[in-house]
Amino acid sequence: MFTYACLVSTQAQVLYDFAAELGNNELSIREGETITITNQNIGGGWIEAKNSRGEVGLVPEDYIEVIVVSFDDPSICLKCIINEVGTDGEVTSNGNNPWTVFDNNASGGFSNNWAAQPEGTETGKTSSNAWPSGGHGHPQAYQGPGAEDDEWDEEWDDVKSSGGYAESEAGEGGAINRGGAHDWTYTQESQVGPVWAYPDYQLDCVVADPKKGSKLYGLKSYIEYQVTPTTTNKPVNHRYKHFDWLYERLLEKYGSAIPIPCLPDKQVAGRFEDEFIKMRMERLQGWMTRMCRHPVISSSEVFQLFLSYKDEKDWKMGKRKAEKDETVGVMVFSTIEPEGLPDLDLIEVEQKCEQFNRFTRAMDDGVKDLLTIGNEHWKRCTGPLPKEYQRIGKAFQNLSSVFTSSGYEGEAALTDALTAAGKTYEEIAQMVAEQPKKDLHFLMETNNEYKGLLGCFPDTVGVHKAAIEKVKEADKLVAAGKITPSDKTTMSKRASTMSYSLQAEMNHFHSNRIYDYNRVMQQYLEQQVKFYEMIAEKLRHAHSQFTTM
Amino acid sequence: MFTYACLVSTQAQVLYDFAAELGNNELSIREGETITITNQNIGGGWIEAKNSRGEVGLVPEDYIEVIVVSFDDPSICLKCIINEVGTDGEVTSNGNNPWTVFDNNASGGFSNNWAAQPEGTETGKTSSNAWPSGGHGHPQAYQGPGAEDDEWDEEWDDVKSSGGYAESEAGEGGAINRGGAHDWTYTQESQVGPVWAYPDYQLDCVVADPKKGSKLYGLKSYIEYQVTPTTTNKPVNHRYKHFDWLYERLLEKYGSAIPIPCLPDKQVAGRFEDEFIKMRMERLQGWMTRMCRHPVISSSEVFQLFLSYKDEKDWKMGKRKAEKDETVGVMVFSTIEPEGLPDLDLIEVEQKCEQFNRFTRAMDDGVKDLLTIGNEHWKRCTGPLPKEYQRIGKAFQNLSSVFTSSGYEGEAALTDALTAAGKTYEEIAQMVAEQPKKDLHFLMETNNEYKGLLGCFPDTVGVHKAAIEKVKEADKLVAAGKITPSDKTTMSKRASTMSYSLQAEMNHFHSNRIYDYNRVMQQYLEQQVKFYEMIAEKLRHAHSQFTTM
Repeated sequence: MFTYACLVSTQAQVLYDFAAELGNNELSIREGETITITNQNIGGGWIEAKNSRGEVGLVPEDYIEVIVVSFDDPSICLKCIINEVGTDGEVTSNGNNPWTVFDNNASGGFSNNWAAQPEGTETGKTSSNAWPSGGHGHPQAYQGPGAEDDEWDEEWDDVKSSGGYAESEAGEGGAINRGGAHDWTYTQESQVGPVWAYPDYQLDCVVADPKKGSKLYGLKSYIEYQVTPTTTNKPVNHRYKHFDWLYERLLEKYGSAIPIPCLPDKQVAGRFEDEFIKMRMERLQGWMTRMCRHPVISSSEVFQLFLSYKDEKDWKMGKRKAEKDETVGVMVFSTIEPEGLPDLDLIEVEQKCEQFNRFTRAMDDGVKDLLTIGNEHWKRCTGPLPKEYQRIGKAFQNLSSVFTSSGYEGEAALTDALTAAGKTYEEIAQMVAEQPKKDLHFLMETNNEYKGLLGCFPDTVGVHKAAIEKVKEADKLVAAGKITPSDKTTMSKRASTMSYSLQAEMNHFHSNRIYDYNRVMQQYLEQQVKFYEMIAEKLRHAHSQFTTM
Repeated sequence: MFTYACLVSTQAQVLYDFAAELGNNELSIREGETITITNQNIGGGWIEAKNSRGEVGLVPEDYIEVIVVSFDDPSICLKCIINEVGTDGEVTSNGNNPWTVFDNNASGGFSNNWAAQPEGTETGKTSSNAWPSGGHGHPQAYQGPGAEDDEWDEEWDDVKSSGGYAESEAGEGGAINRGGAHDWTYTQESQVGPVWAYPDYQLDCVVADPKKGSKLYGLKSYIEYQVTPTTTNKPVNHRYKHFDWLYERLLEKYGSAIPIPCLPDKQVAGRFEDEFIKMRMERLQGWMTRMCRHPVISSSEVFQLFLSYKDEKDWKMGKRKAEKDETVGVMVFSTIEPEGLPDLDLIEVEQKCEQFNRFTRAMDDGVKDLLTIGNEHWKRCTGPLPKEYQRIGKAFQNLSSVFTSSGYEGEAALTDALTAAGKTYEEIAQMVAEQPKKDLHFLMETNNEYKGLLGCFPDTVGVHKAAIEKVKEADKLVAAGKITPSDKTTMSKRASTMSYSLQAEMNHFHSNRIYDYNRVMQQYLEQQVKFYEMIAEKLRHAHSQFTTM
């Protein structure tokens, strides 16, 4: 079998400080330090490296940047794209991904070994992904295993999650690919172009009923959420770290093809405060709903396991299997079957891709802008504005009580009305302060979700772009006798599949976006209307209490 | 005849710098300088003084403070309360008002020579008021004639307004007291106690149609307002300085009994800007309406002259007459006839007075508080708040145009609705910014008016308090043989009249206050309701444009 390896560098620059956690084989590194990569095939977002003092340990790959060597003649590099490596998963020390050389997103990375993989190679036999694996391009996605984890429940985790499984399991030879392509789905041509095959029944689930649990005789406590899928209607319990585990699996498996939005931020401080738990639950709900809505994700084995495992044993076995799944990264494209669809025109695909790229960037700006404004508005609505209404209310009431002290008869009607008006403004103050939770909140949450989602696209699009570039080089490679015309056809077919996939994903994103923004804007405006109507009604009542003269 | 004169001091301390205007016999003085009063009987807010270099000239009395000599034994001072002065209007240089010694408001002052004036003195013959005259206690009331004046129109003013007339005319003997007591009115007992006799027909007037005029071949320009009383419905023209002249006359004549609120502030810069003219006109209207509403003011000769002079000659003659009016200051109480009403119980009156004093102080605080809050609210409503709504609107529109660029078909409904929502928030921004002019403005103006009015009360109440104190001393004076029991009875009767007057004024104030606040609150709330209803309506429309899914 083939994989793409090209000596770019084994040297890397440290981008951020990282403090090793004891007992995890980690290596502390400091920003600016140069380290030598000793094993980039660890997986799970980790690589093994050696520092200048000769100490070896694991470091998070997002914390370092490989020192890219530039080539005067790109063909020197391209030459090595068909380096053969053994099926035992051993990668030579020069086993870097050559595509990173052509990738704009140099600090990120993805495994592209499938896209241009010649015919005849059994995908099931793929031993290991070239470093780095599946879509870890966005640093916020990084949740170091073990480090600051939500107290991972050891009794459930017989496989230590701190990396190593990809390496250690690879030797066992071949992942259990139960269901195979059924785990994935087809792209279909629609009015808007390729779309995923959507199920007849739209899966959804309810995240609810957070409960505090404890272990180690009460020494450690955690929150367990009840997750009830609409299919079985049978609740299962999950802690935040289980969601996080699911996220990691989805990211690893589908990250090259589907943007997997991050989970809501971890927050260690005040973890058990009701407000925080409610907020996290709401966001986990949003995340789960989004995953449920995705036809590929929702029908995946790992997602189904998460939603409807039968018992602890089922969960444990499913978990172990998912962790051993080797159809990850770009390999996942091998399970896509754009049945009966013709190969795509690369130029057209590139243009679509570029347009989508521009679009997501522009939308990212728009969304961030809205979030900034929304934040300011939130502050105003909950801070100075209600205070001002309250002061107006107090001033009216104060004037009313001064008037009452006049000793002049026959002004009870005025003072009563003035007091009522004052109280009305105090009520309005309260309403103003509470309103953002009723409308702006959902607008902000939706935009926050989209911010996360949009942050994943550059990687997803990047994987695709790199594949296209590769195919564009194929003619040269054939001419130079580096690959056979048959290899070229295969590469082209696969790039076409990736393009179908990306377009299906674009369309999925667009239709969801239209649905989400329609819904959130309706909700926002509906609440805004209610808010202003209620204020008007309150003031109308206050007005009616003054004597008409 | 008698007047109260007591040697307090002829020395005065200069409080503020004053720059003399050429040709007006004025004297420049500097803050902190000590000057000698050479003639305090000038009137119109002016006195004659000599500086240390021997220069003599007129200075505004509010710019100086008489150096008060304290007496170890108050009776030494009280002794001289019945000093006789000639009817020729000549006042001896020690002709200071003894009551200022007992007055808390030492820098201000009022003429109290009538209150304790013994029986048999013809009020019509009163030559001159002891210095200082009628209610000049509030410095903001001071509008020095000539100094920064609204370019007083000389051709209309054959009598130089810069003081002197009181002095020069006094010798002519007796003011023309046309109408006499008809110029004033009676207090009547009502449910709430003494009230002024209100006319059957409520006078009002319209101040409108400001026109720019010019004189001196266009060198000087001014604004002339059209004032139309509801009685004649015949418009007369007046410049700001004419209003100011009227204010001075009313203050001089009625200030001891009736709080005369200041005119709107002068503002030299930007005097011809439309906004300023509109604002001044509105405030002059407010001031005139308040004056019209007062039964005593509105029926006064000078006010009637101002509203309905026939021609320029009529105006000139009326003006001259008004300026010669000697029934000013506390003398005005002599024209009040509380017919058939018994003498009041002093203790009870004092209590009422004290209550009213507390009330006006509390209301003053309340009004100022409301003004402060209103000002802040105004700033927010015209500044950051609409800017925020505008930014929200822009953000929606921006998102809409990003969405339009997606290339995805079938989202025109969303983008149109989103654009419309964005525009709606821009419209709301506009509405928010313009709203204060529609509601808060009137609330502020009314409170501003009341702030001015309340500022006049301490003086009005002070005049009364001083009279009461005087009467309380009367027993001692009788025992000491300083005054006769008959003198005491007269003093008591007159104090009683002043009390009736004050109570009538309190009641006038209260009933107007109730009317004004009822009206302004109704207006405010009505506009607020409209405002919120319109926002709700706009948002409802924006909401309806989103597709229901």
